[in-house]
Amino acid sequence: MLPAADILVTHGTVLTMDGAGTRINDGAVAIAGDRILAAAPAERLAGVQAKKVIDAHGGVIMPGLVNTHTHAAMTCFRGLADDLPLMTWLNDHIFPAEARLTPEMVTKGALLGCAEMILSGTTCFCDMYLFEEAVARAAHAAGLRAVVGEVLFDFPSPNYGALENGLAYTRRMAARWADDPLIGVAVEPHSPYLCAPDLLCRAADLARELQLPLVTHLSETAGEVAQIRSRYGRTPVGHLAHLGILAPNLLACHCVQLTPEDIALLQAADVKIAHNPESNMKLASGIAPVPALLAAGLCVALGTDGCASNNDLDLFLEMDTAAKLHKVATLDPTALPAEQVLKMATIDGARALGLDAITGSLEPGKRADLIVIDCRKPHLTPLYHPASHLVYAARGGDVDTVVINGRLVMEKRELRTLDLERITADVRAIAAQIGAASR
Amino acid sequence: MLPAADILVTHGTVLTMDGAGTRINDGAVAIAGDRILAAAPAERLAGVQAKKVIDAHGGVIMPGLVNTHTHAAMTCFRGLADDLPLMTWLNDHIFPAEARLTPEMVTKGALLGCAEMILSGTTCFCDMYLFEEAVARAAHAAGLRAVVGEVLFDFPSPNYGALENGLAYTRRMAARWADDPLIGVAVEPHSPYLCAPDLLCRAADLARELQLPLVTHLSETAGEVAQIRSRYGRTPVGHLAHLGILAPNLLACHCVQLTPEDIALLQAADVKIAHNPESNMKLASGIAPVPALLAAGLCVALGTDGCASNNDLDLFLEMDTAAKLHKVATLDPTALPAEQVLKMATIDGARALGLDAITGSLEPGKRADLIVIDCRKPHLTPLYHPASHLVYAARGGDVDTVVINGRLVMEKRELRTLDLERITADVRAIAAQIGAASR
Repeated sequence: MLPAADILVTHGTVLTMDGAGTRINDGAVAIAGDRILAAAPAERLAGVQAKKVIDAHGGVIMPGLVNTHTHAAMTCFRGLADDLPLMTWLNDHIFPAEARLTPEMVTKGALLGCAEMILSGTTCFCDMYLFEEAVARAAHAAGLRAVVGEVLFDFPSPNYGALENGLAYTRRMAARWADDPLIGVAVEPHSPYLCAPDLLCRAADLARELQLPLVTHLSETAGEVAQIRSRYGRTPVGHLAHLGILAPNLLACHCVQLTPEDIALLQAADVKIAHNPESNMKLASGIAPVPALLAAGLCVALGTDGCASNNDLDLFLEMDTAAKLHKVATLDPTALPAEQVLKMATIDGARALGLDAITGSLEPGKRADLIVIDCRKPHLTPLYHPASHLVYAARGGDVDTVVINGRLVMEKRELRTLDLERITADVRAIAAQIGAASR
Repeated sequence: MLPAADILVTHGTVLTMDGAGTRINDGAVAIAGDRILAAAPAERLAGVQAKKVIDAHGGVIMPGLVNTHTHAAMTCFRGLADDLPLMTWLNDHIFPAEARLTPEMVTKGALLGCAEMILSGTTCFCDMYLFEEAVARAAHAAGLRAVVGEVLFDFPSPNYGALENGLAYTRRMAARWADDPLIGVAVEPHSPYLCAPDLLCRAADLARELQLPLVTHLSETAGEVAQIRSRYGRTPVGHLAHLGILAPNLLACHCVQLTPEDIALLQAADVKIAHNPESNMKLASGIAPVPALLAAGLCVALGTDGCASNNDLDLFLEMDTAAKLHKVATLDPTALPAEQVLKMATIDGARALGLDAITGSLEPGKRADLIVIDCRKPHLTPLYHPASHLVYAARGGDVDTVVINGRLVMEKRELRTLDLERITADVRAIAAQIGAASR
């Protein structure tokens, strides 16, 4: 006999995203506390006594999406400046706006980002920004799983001041959130171009000591590659390899400009990769060689990057773009099939963050992080193959229900953890100041 | 004093898309009958007596989008088969399904396509398919502006049989709809690879005689170019030029594989181009040289292509993809700025269909085809620049209200012209048959 459940989500098509790719037509998922009790045919779970039953008829039940690279608080700068050369965009718009950042702005921007992510089916994200403690609190308030890391670079930070304090800040944050069920901490040196070898090595040491993920931007643009080559005589990947930093706990964001030797180095060290196709397209950085990375057996996950370079946090649209972009880039319509892209956005996202033991698939014993997509909509009609719809036709707004760590955070599009009216009003007020300052 | 209006849409940011790119903050649009009376500051139209007032506070009021290339009834095949080599996809899935097409299926599929287009802010579309009379009726029932054309090719059609009948069918359809306020007819030979020179020339003659648009697929894939070169010793564009078919009334769909000489020929003849980035990506056809076409002064509009190769009809997402794709393809982040892409999706779409005198912008005297986008949403907050949001962050589901030819066809996301329950049930029933047949 099955134990009692807190939540039973039933009568949907269950995509478990487990190792066997199990799909259950007319399936159900039973949740007790923060865990998944069972994912099985609805009929088999019909006898489960549940406090709350969610009818997923006509829908898909799947793991929540994992956004492996974002800067959530940059919602404050969404659409502030677009269609500009990279250096104009950064130097004339983004950096001046960020120079005036306060913890309050980061809190408000991150809350909006968290709301947007839950509303579009993301249940876990990895963030890099300034005042990251505020992001951790925002994610916690939203009920959203997150891996947070204060951005580290060689020059003084508006948050912690001298570099030395940045590593200490990260250490304190790791201690503070160590037992939290939702929030994890990462060590996040910005990039090889903003971090000297000493900082990169000390960050890697700290990550190793505390057994945390190490997250960095890597090989995003041709300009970065040229700069690192001229400084150190190596590609950015080669540079990190030389420093002994490439390792399974490293999440390398972007990896757009890679040589075959770079790919071999990443492969040998089992480095994880966060692919951000929309940001790379919009900023004209290039197209990451994802099919080659996958062929090398590397774990490639998806990210949206920040809102100023995308301009949204919708991982459904990112899946669509990834699936299409690599087809046209390789002139192969079989590249990145829908099932592969779904893996990238779920279980491989969890793996990239070192969280695949607890999330990323619907399997008994894992934390209950799941979403229900309502397919009874004109643009999702008819339904032949759920995976095709999820990648090529669904968008975040089709997510009906979100459960994170066993908690119902969105039901029938109603966000239960955050006050949307207040959050959007707060960010509008911030934007009014930024808009006035930039005039 | 202003005359009385039927509808006043007021207190939104009006993007007129007129020649001067006029934007009116806190603006309004007054509509009388099927025409726009005025687009002006809300204050100036505050005294207008209107039977219906629509509050667009916090939103954008703009011309409805124009989808210049689709096969609306292919909603029946949405997601039927994806991630396959082109010829496997066509020969094993799409062609067998289409061989069993009936006018009833086309009616039902087209109704779903029309519903989806209105729900995502499209107010005018150009269609090519079999049994196109059924598409005309569906669009008319939906209250959607359309240019319809029966697809013509050398082999017998499931609709009209021998080719001869196809031209007669088109002629009859043109006569039947001649006085309709919404439906226009085009002559639509499929492509240079499915139409012999004789058919292409006769189709062009008919279009010239009846003063209709001529619509064809052109230079979509490298395979097509190779085939036409080997048959006729010219590129597809060169072939049409040689036949004397390139002209301002020609709408050439795709134009992915072009030589500089092709572009010069298209430019000299003022041919209009329907760009379908998502379909071209998904089918791995290639990336159309849109920046070069625009630099040549050509009119480039947007299309979604059919649902089997996209897999939706959302022109907002197509704008986003177009803007990003050409940035990464040219490695220039200033390529295809948001304002340019908005033009492609509105006034240049109308121009491509020969309808720019009556639609595509909000100007007094034009038919009232407009949409209201609700920007009071987390993913559209804050709002610095409306054009950026419309291209990079909005999606079809953010469209709140749609007016076509002065008629309110959608209000607060409620479709007023079609029965969505019945339409989606009808297409699900068709899909059940197709799914059973393909097993």
